[in-house]
Amino acid sequence: MDTSYRLADIAARLGGRVLGDGEVRVTQIATLENAQSNHISFLTNSKYRAQLAHTSAGAVILGEADADATGLPRIISDNPYAYFARVSALLNPLPEARPGVHPSAVIGAGAQIDATASIAATAVVGEGAVIGAHSVIGEGCCIGAHTVIGSHARLYPRVVIYHDCIIGDNLIAHAGAVIGSDGFGIAMDEGHWIKIPQIGRVVIGNDVEIGANTTIDRGALDDTVIEDGVKLDNQIQVAHNVRIGAHTAIAGCVGIAGSTTIGRYCRVGGSAGILGHLHIADHVEIAAFTLIGKSIREAGSYAAIFPFSKTEDWRKNAVHLRHLDDLVKRIKIMEQEIESLKRKD
Amino acid sequence: MDTSYRLADIAARLGGRVLGDGEVRVTQIATLENAQSNHISFLTNSKYRAQLAHTSAGAVILGEADADATGLPRIISDNPYAYFARVSALLNPLPEARPGVHPSAVIGAGAQIDATASIAATAVVGEGAVIGAHSVIGEGCCIGAHTVIGSHARLYPRVVIYHDCIIGDNLIAHAGAVIGSDGFGIAMDEGHWIKIPQIGRVVIGNDVEIGANTTIDRGALDDTVIEDGVKLDNQIQVAHNVRIGAHTAIAGCVGIAGSTTIGRYCRVGGSAGILGHLHIADHVEIAAFTLIGKSIREAGSYAAIFPFSKTEDWRKNAVHLRHLDDLVKRIKIMEQEIESLKRKD
Amino acid sequence: MDTSYRLADIAARLGGRVLGDGEVRVTQIATLENAQSNHISFLTNSKYRAQLAHTSAGAVILGEADADATGLPRIISDNPYAYFARVSALLNPLPEARPGVHPSAVIGAGAQIDATASIAATAVVGEGAVIGAHSVIGEGCCIGAHTVIGSHARLYPRVVIYHDCIIGDNLIAHAGAVIGSDGFGIAMDEGHWIKIPQIGRVVIGNDVEIGANTTIDRGALDDTVIEDGVKLDNQIQVAHNVRIGAHTAIAGCVGIAGSTTIGRYCRVGGSAGILGHLHIADHVEIAAFTLIGKSIREAGSYAAIFPFSKTEDWRKNAVHLRHLDDLVKRIKIMEQEIESLKRKD
Repeated sequence: MDTSYRLADIAARLGGRVLGDGEVRVTQIATLENAQSNHISFLTNSKYRAQLAHTSAGAVILGEADADATGLPRIISDNPYAYFARVSALLNPLPEARPGVHPSAVIGAGAQIDATASIAATAVVGEGAVIGAHSVIGEGCCIGAHTVIGSHARLYPRVVIYHDCIIGDNLIAHAGAVIGSDGFGIAMDEGHWIKIPQIGRVVIGNDVEIGANTTIDRGALDDTVIEDGVKLDNQIQVAHNVRIGAHTAIAGCVGIAGSTTIGRYCRVGGSAGILGHLHIADHVEIAAFTLIGKSIREAGSYAAIFPFSKTEDWRKNAVHLRHLDDLVKRIKIMEQEIESLKRKD
Repeated sequence: MDTSYRLADIAARLGGRVLGDGEVRVTQIATLENAQSNHISFLTNSKYRAQLAHTSAGAVILGEADADATGLPRIISDNPYAYFARVSALLNPLPEARPGVHPSAVIGAGAQIDATASIAATAVVGEGAVIGAHSVIGEGCCIGAHTVIGSHARLYPRVVIYHDCIIGDNLIAHAGAVIGSDGFGIAMDEGHWIKIPQIGRVVIGNDVEIGANTTIDRGALDDTVIEDGVKLDNQIQVAHNVRIGAHTAIAGCVGIAGSTTIGRYCRVGGSAGILGHLHIADHVEIAAFTLIGKSIREAGSYAAIFPFSKTEDWRKNAVHLRHLDDLVKRIKIMEQEIESLKRKD
Repeated sequence: MDTSYRLADIAARLGGRVLGDGEVRVTQIATLENAQSNHISFLTNSKYRAQLAHTSAGAVILGEADADATGLPRIISDNPYAYFARVSALLNPLPEARPGVHPSAVIGAGAQIDATASIAATAVVGEGAVIGAHSVIGEGCCIGAHTVIGSHARLYPRVVIYHDCIIGDNLIAHAGAVIGSDGFGIAMDEGHWIKIPQIGRVVIGNDVEIGANTTIDRGALDDTVIEDGVKLDNQIQVAHNVRIGAHTAIAGCVGIAGSTTIGRYCRVGGSAGILGHLHIADHVEIAAFTLIGKSIREAGSYAAIFPFSKTEDWRKNAVHLRHLDDLVKRIKIMEQEIESLKRKD
């Protein structure tokens, strides 16, 4: 019952050059290892060329450099990884959501829900909120009062967006994501913390994806801003008044402290951190597990990872980190003494 | 339509000394950069004094040291940051929630809900639970059986509190927070893990704030305790039987392992960690990204951050960490050899 | 009203050897410090033997080595920690959930819910989903279309499981856990990220526990797999196509990147991380806060923690990490110079 596509059909839609039998039909995409004869597979790194010999795939996607690495029917693309993504999207369209409001959903006064939008069971849409065309608000989601969501959004179950946020088109937000919660603003006064009201918003551009259980706090006074095309993995924490530049991609468990600005086309590895009030340039790559404690003015790749070893070796080595300054002083003294010995010779 | 306040009114309510025209009216608070003429702004750090010259604010809050740094109408305070927080709270009161239980909420048998409390759409309150005066239980929240919540709590959507927990007054809990989940208690027995029932509770004092998607586990046998005035940011993990002392503030993504006690007035930076069964004294500051692996008996500031650099530099330097012990041995040998050479001279 | 058990009854059910009065009745288990006369307590580490002298417990569980360390009625076990777990489970049975579907729950077409299962208020079960015997789906949970959950599962409130996942028997999943969200799959194409559809599933074995707000992504093409007996604490991130071997236990806040395979009986400390596409052998222990950046082929204990110190000391020491390579070069030069001086002598 799966829809099938001829290779020639795929190339006609998505571009690329067909080599071999363009009449071959495929219904699904799979890894070289697991593909069957009605599947198309792909090779995105010449390093794994040898795997081509053993695949049962009916067809493959290859880069130009590997165009002749197999006799299988194939599509040749300049960017086989992106091509794979496009073919997979073609073969795996998202299920259509039924337009309309489920009877168990609760809609606040004055909310404007496009007739093509879908509000799932037990979702709550606040007063004056706006839900754009073809947007899907999943089960148990809560959309705060006066929040505006653009078209073609897909919110998976239990996403919470607080009041007064502005969301562009094509948002994907996974389960448990929280957008617009209060930033962590407190002031110490005579032994007690006073809460600083968080009156800014979260403003999100178009084509943004937000992972499961990721949190994005609203601004203290001005807004927290996520620009177009930003991709956030799961369990990321974005503090108040952060700005994340367009097309930046951030892996899971990263924490970004307040008022930091991250440039465009940056990539941040998993569990990394960025302290507050910093500026990160465009095209910066930050390694996993790395804390960025100063602004980065120059594009490039940055890291700070303590290399792991067997615990007994780590213990022997790590103990010296607490005495590194003494060690350097001892080295300086030795250098002087050697100089002095050399002079005496 | 915004309520406006004269500077003189603000000082009459909140203290502080007015300099310049006390009749100036303000409706909102804003940064020096973005303030307009009907806004009040603030300077909390003399370092940014120069910005005062360019603000369009109608009035400003200043510390004593900066009292004469502008001719704008101003309020002078000993603690301008706390004063800013108070003015913002005055100008931005929380919207009132309507008392009563939404028809889509589900209330268990024997639950006691104060007549002034508000139970929002799709919230579930368990059997025998108690919700105090003026407390707001947000959309989709679940309050476990026999849990007691004090007065003036504000639970944002989808907070879960398990059964039998005790919560003081004025709790703020943000979306996705989980309070009272089982601690991670397992015992290995003949190749299988056995679950250890978690029969303690979570007990939370007054004036506590808990961030979005933060988790606080119930105790294994005794309770997990969060004392008065503790402020927890987003995505913090508090394990079973932890105790966090009054007025301690913890930034996002911190993990605290089981049975650790943290003192009063501590501050913990983002993504830091504290191992289990430790004692942290009062007034301890822990830097971001720092793992505390031993008890800290003395107030003060502690850190353990690997400084970042360009990845190529990091790679050259970090490789030596696995040989630090050898390096120290080589240094010792050289010191002996130098001594020996000196003696020979 | 609590059920009480005689020591002799407990030993008859759970094994172990009774010393002293087997007729003593206990109603609850407690720590040595807090136990009362109707409580049973336990000593699992001989190091704390001295505490036995001061306990008010009516009975205790001891290991063989401590069999004679008290005159209290006692049960002697080879594995007193596991015995404690079993006694606590005996004294603290989970409350029974009422079978049936709460009227506020929403059940999709074709869903198969066992007659002994319990679907709580505001839960949503998708089309064609299967809920096994005696399973409890908590308040506000969302079970995706065609997902299959085995028997005796206990899902606490607001767990989300996406479509098409396969879950074994005896799952425990805590509030806010998300299973089956999209993996973080994106491909860069001419300045824009293209989403790679995530068409794999999450497949979970029997006897798995998943902590609060933990997230497990579905596979990109093949499945993400959690084998039997795996125990995951809170706020763990498991990326797409990860496989976690049977009986592995992972502490809170750990992040595991895509396509990594973790062996059986591993233990991973809190806030650790494992990069993608790695293989971790069976019986590997990874310390808290440690990033594993290469495959581990050999069982054993591994660590990479920067030791903390007072911030002023840390600052003095850490600055040298950026110059470690230069330092090593200086040491090499000195070694050569010393050799040269020695030859001259």
